[in-house]
Amino acid sequence: MKTSPQLQLLLTGNELMSGHTVDSNSAMIADWLNRRGIEVTRKVTIGDSFTGLVAEMDLISSACDVLIVNGGLGPTVDDLTAQAVAQLIAQPLSEHPQAMQHLQQWCAQRHLTLNDANRKQAQLPAGATIVPNPSGSAVGFSVEHQGCLIICTPGVPSELRLMMEDSVLERVAERFPGTESLSTLRLQSFGLGESSLQQLVSDECPDWPEEVELGFRAGVPLLEVKLSTRHPRHSELQQQCYQRLQQLMGEFIIGRDDSTLASAVVAALTAQGSQISCAESCTGGAIAAAITGVAGASAVFEAGFVTYSNAIKQQLVGVSNESLAAGGAVSEEVAREMALGAMANSGAQYAIAVTGIAGPSGGCDDKPVGTVWIAWGAAQTLRAHRFVLSGSRAHFQLMVTAISLDLMRRELLAIEGEPRYFSRY
Amino acid sequence: MKTSPQLQLLLTGNELMSGHTVDSNSAMIADWLNRRGIEVTRKVTIGDSFTGLVAEMDLISSACDVLIVNGGLGPTVDDLTAQAVAQLIAQPLSEHPQAMQHLQQWCAQRHLTLNDANRKQAQLPAGATIVPNPSGSAVGFSVEHQGCLIICTPGVPSELRLMMEDSVLERVAERFPGTESLSTLRLQSFGLGESSLQQLVSDECPDWPEEVELGFRAGVPLLEVKLSTRHPRHSELQQQCYQRLQQLMGEFIIGRDDSTLASAVVAALTAQGSQISCAESCTGGAIAAAITGVAGASAVFEAGFVTYSNAIKQQLVGVSNESLAAGGAVSEEVAREMALGAMANSGAQYAIAVTGIAGPSGGCDDKPVGTVWIAWGAAQTLRAHRFVLSGSRAHFQLMVTAISLDLMRRELLAIEGEPRYFSRY
Repeated sequence: MKTSPQLQLLLTGNELMSGHTVDSNSAMIADWLNRRGIEVTRKVTIGDSFTGLVAEMDLISSACDVLIVNGGLGPTVDDLTAQAVAQLIAQPLSEHPQAMQHLQQWCAQRHLTLNDANRKQAQLPAGATIVPNPSGSAVGFSVEHQGCLIICTPGVPSELRLMMEDSVLERVAERFPGTESLSTLRLQSFGLGESSLQQLVSDECPDWPEEVELGFRAGVPLLEVKLSTRHPRHSELQQQCYQRLQQLMGEFIIGRDDSTLASAVVAALTAQGSQISCAESCTGGAIAAAITGVAGASAVFEAGFVTYSNAIKQQLVGVSNESLAAGGAVSEEVAREMALGAMANSGAQYAIAVTGIAGPSGGCDDKPVGTVWIAWGAAQTLRAHRFVLSGSRAHFQLMVTAISLDLMRRELLAIEGEPRYFSRY
Repeated sequence: MKTSPQLQLLLTGNELMSGHTVDSNSAMIADWLNRRGIEVTRKVTIGDSFTGLVAEMDLISSACDVLIVNGGLGPTVDDLTAQAVAQLIAQPLSEHPQAMQHLQQWCAQRHLTLNDANRKQAQLPAGATIVPNPSGSAVGFSVEHQGCLIICTPGVPSELRLMMEDSVLERVAERFPGTESLSTLRLQSFGLGESSLQQLVSDECPDWPEEVELGFRAGVPLLEVKLSTRHPRHSELQQQCYQRLQQLMGEFIIGRDDSTLASAVVAALTAQGSQISCAESCTGGAIAAAITGVAGASAVFEAGFVTYSNAIKQQLVGVSNESLAAGGAVSEEVAREMALGAMANSGAQYAIAVTGIAGPSGGCDDKPVGTVWIAWGAAQTLRAHRFVLSGSRAHFQLMVTAISLDLMRRELLAIEGEPRYFSRY
C-alpha cells in the first residue's frame, strides 16, 4: 500500500562496486530533487548484472512511485540497462527513431562515423519515452511499470547534470503534486570551519528562525553555507538570516551561489577599474589560471609571470641578486620584489606574488616543505606574510592559491584586521 | 540457496540520502575487500530509520554470507544501528564491558568526562562480538543472523579505514576461503573514446584472453583503461594484454597507474634533459600550473608567460605588430611568435603557446567562441593547429590544456602522424 509518493534510486556499474569510483551522481540527483522538496528514500547499487538489474527494478517499482536508474546506457557490452528494462516490461528492444536521429547528429557534429557500439545506444525498449541528452551520445528514456515511473539516466556526471536540469526534475515533480519546494540560499565562505560557524550561530543568534535550516557543505578550499526553508515567505526569512550572518562573519563570506575567491577578486577589481598581475613560483601559474578562469577576467588581468628559477625571477620580474643571496628564493624580500616587478612589468595597480616550497623535496630545517611567502597589494600598501602549510604538493598549491586570492580580496574590500588563519598556519 | 559466498553493504545515515554528502566509505570498503579478491555484490543506502534498518538487515542477511553495515554507531539519537540489530536478533541491548572499558580509556586519554551520549555507545546487543576501534570512541560489533555474519562499522572514514585494516578484513576473509585476489593493471589514455577502444579490441583481438576483463573509467580529459584478472599468472596475462594494447593504440596511452598528460611531458623532458616554457593567453596559466603540479617539474620548467592582452603579448614574448594587425590575436602567426618568444626569453628548447577565445563572449563569425590556435615544439620543428571546441569556459580551458600537453607529449616521444582529434575539433 502506497501512501505519500516514494522515490528510490538504482545505480548500476561494476566501477561502483569496485573500490575505484566514488559515486557522486546519487548526491547530485538528491541535491536536485531536494531543491524541489522531493526526498530520496532508498538507494540500491549493483554491478553490471542483467538478472540483478531486472530483479531490483521489479522489486523497487512494486514499492515506490518513481525509480531513477543511473548508469548502464553507454555503448559497451557491459551497459545493460535498456536490455534489462525491455525484459522487465516484456517488450522487445528496437531502434528508436528519435534516439537514432540524436546519435546521428551527435556523431556528425564531431565528424565521427556511427559505429555498431554507438548504434546500440539507440536500441530502446519498445514504447519507451525519450529523455533528451543535451550533451552526450546516449539519450535517457522512461517507462511505466506497476504504476511506477522508471527513468533511466546516463552515468557520466556532466550529462546527468544537464538532463536533471533540462527535463528529469520536471517529470519527477509531476508525481509529487503539492510538494513545497525547498528554497536554499547558498553562500561561499573561506577561513572559518563548520564547527566554529555553527557555534557562532548557536551562541549569538538565540532568535534564529526555526523554519530556516542552517547547513554546510565542506569543500576545499571553500565552505558552503546553506539557508534552507520550505516557508512560503522564504526570501524574507532567508534575507533576515543572511543579514545576521553578514553581521557575525561578513569578512569570511566570499559571495552567494557559486562565487569563488577568484570571482570575488575579479568583481572587486572590475568595480574599481583596476588591474592585477601575478608572479608565481611554487603555484606555477595556478593563481593566474584561477583569475582567468572567471568570465570577464580580461578587463582586470593582462599579464602573469611564472618564475620558477632564480634566473627567471631576476630576468622577468627584476628580483635582485642581493635579496636572493641574503634570504634565498623563499624570503620576504624576494616575494615583495616579485610583486613589485609584476606590477612594473604589466602596468597593473595590484599584484600577488608567491614563493615557497611545494615539496615533496626541497625543504630544509629553517624552511621546511610547505613554507611559503606571499606578498600582496598595491605598490604603496604591499604586505607580505609567511605561512607553513602541511599536506601534499597538490594541496599546498591549492591552499596557497586560495589564501593569496583571499588576502587580495580582503585588501580590495578594505577588510580590517588579520584573517584567523594567520594564527593557524 | 547460497552458492559462492556473497557480501553486501548496508549504509545508513540521513546525510547520505540528502545531496550533502558524497559516500566515499563504500568505495574504501570495496577497495580493501578487492585486494583480497572479495567482491561487493550489492549495496543499499537508507536514512536513519529504525524499521527500515531492521527490515533491510533481515532481507539482506537471508540472501548473503556477510553484511557490512556502515554508520549509525555515533552518540546521537539518530544513531540507531545497535538498537536495530538487537531487535533483528531478538536480544536486549546491554552495556558491553569491553566497549565500556574502551570508552573510559578513550575519554581519559582526551581528558573528557564520560557523558550519557558517550555511554550510549557501549550499549550493544547481548552476545555481540566487539570489533575494536583503534581511534574513535564507538567500537564496532558483529553478530550472526540466519547464517550471515553482520559486521557493524562506524561512518567516520578515518576510523573505518583503521578498523578495516586492523580486523574487519581478516574476519570477512575467513568466510571466503580460497578466494584469489583480483589484480588490476590501470592505464591512462587520451584522445580515443570508450566505444572506439572497445570496438578496436573486439575487432582486432579475437584471441583476447577470457580471464582478463577489460574495463573503462571515463574521466575528463583522460580515459582510464583497466585490465583485471584473478588468474594466478596475472602479471604475465596482463603484460600480454598490455602489449596488445600498445600495438593497437600505443600512441594514445599516456602511462600506467595515475599518470597524467603533464607527468608524461615532464618525464619525457627529464629523460632528454630538456626544458619547456609556455606562453598562454586563453588558458591563463593552466598549462604552466599543470606542468608545475608534477613533483620534480623544476628540472624541466623555469618560466611561463601569461599574456592576456595584445600589449603584453608584444612586450613579454615579442609578438609583432604586423602579425597582430594581419590576423588578430587569435591566429597562427601570433601563436607561433608566442612560442618562439617563450623559448627565447626563457632559454627553454621547447614551448607551448595558446591563443584563443574561451568565451562566453568575444567570438565573431569567422572566430567563434571556442576557437584556439596552439603552437608547440622546438624552434626548428614548431607546428601550429587550429581547433574549435564546444562547451563552457572551464571545459574549453581544460581541453586546451590537455590537447596542448598531448601534442607536446607526441612531439617529445616522436609519435608520427596526426592524432584523431585533429578531425574532431
